[in-house]
Amino acid sequence: MGLTLHGYWRSGAAWRVRIALALKGLAHDACSHDLRSGAQRDADYRRLNPQGLVPALDPGMAGEAPLTQSLAIIEWLEETHPAPALLPGDALGRARVRAMAQVIACDVHPLGNLRVLQALKGDLGADDAQVHAWLARWMGEGLAALETMVARWGQGFAYGDAPGLVECCLVPQLYAARRFGVGLEAWPRLVEIDARCAMLSAFAAAHPAAQADADQA
Amino acid sequence: MGLTLHGYWRSGAAWRVRIALALKGLAHDACSHDLRSGAQRDADYRRLNPQGLVPALDPGMAGEAPLTQSLAIIEWLEETHPAPALLPGDALGRARVRAMAQVIACDVHPLGNLRVLQALKGDLGADDAQVHAWLARWMGEGLAALETMVARWGQGFAYGDAPGLVECCLVPQLYAARRFGVGLEAWPRLVEIDARCAMLSAFAAAHPAAQADADQA
Repeated sequence: MGLTLHGYWRSGAAWRVRIALALKGLAHDACSHDLRSGAQRDADYRRLNPQGLVPALDPGMAGEAPLTQSLAIIEWLEETHPAPALLPGDALGRARVRAMAQVIACDVHPLGNLRVLQALKGDLGADDAQVHAWLARWMGEGLAALETMVARWGQGFAYGDAPGLVECCLVPQLYAARRFGVGLEAWPRLVEIDARCAMLSAFAAAHPAAQADADQA
Repeated sequence: MGLTLHGYWRSGAAWRVRIALALKGLAHDACSHDLRSGAQRDADYRRLNPQGLVPALDPGMAGEAPLTQSLAIIEWLEETHPAPALLPGDALGRARVRAMAQVIACDVHPLGNLRVLQALKGDLGADDAQVHAWLARWMGEGLAALETMVARWGQGFAYGDAPGLVECCLVPQLYAARRFGVGLEAWPRLVEIDARCAMLSAFAAAHPAAQADADQA
């Protein structure tokens, strides 16, 4: 049995896993859950992922529930399919790369995903300008730190000279920034990495617009 | 040179690292940054950690900047000081444990830390009842999923029969829930694990109240 990714074309977290799969050249089936209609909260899917979130990766192993949480899934892919590596070979390097990925995954993305934006508007009555300021603030703080970290350790990509775990997180985050009108001028290194990734076939294959469940333009 | 942890007694993320250090029996020096006065945003500290957040762990290696992001720090400790292990020995087990930790670190804690609560009140004008509902919602969604995952894989602790990465994240999160008045009745397995941890000397040593920078009662 092969890998099946439970995702959604516009989910930034599912996109991270698609990039990792593509960089490693791993084929997978896709199972789409429409986040706009709340399909990921269905009871059937919650039996697979108690969080009712995407992504989840069915490893195709009899009796094993899907793996959940994008960073945990990518670490599993790295351990079970080591080449090409998405993490450096030394412990200190791995700590740097994981930290950069977690700037996005723990301090930026969680404050800007769909369920949070819906809560800001619905529960707290935030208007569009307040939501924009909220997104710009958290993206700004996190991406500014990441720009500094890339200046220390990057060599064309975020850490060293090849794309890896950081790029899995960075590319979807910059897409979200653009989508919500957050300017990227202050982070030229990040924009340059993003542009470099866009030229690679793995990133093209993983892009939301290339997914079967994407809205027609 | 030894390890130096940049933290704050009440930071949940710094507490995670203190637990990991204590479980592994690693001594460390502590450097406190008062989050209430914003000391973590000082320029001097930002040179060490561009995010201006705690924790950061100075590995005591000449010329190397401190490690940042609590989960990345704990993975580094696990790689450099493998015993006792905080992650299972098999890839699938590690994926399960990382996912459970990330439920807290990516989907619960980021929505309830101090800077976010300050923004809810200051920028969005949320009142105490709205802040409480916000916290209760995200804690509730995440902890309910974690309770289900523990039911699948726990055997006294969250995954198997010894504390590890999940407990590093869970114990501080339940402390935060209690502090903010979020009831824990719906998650008896999590409460039981927390109580079991409280009887272990490593968890006692890592507790906020046991830190030198803690408020006097």
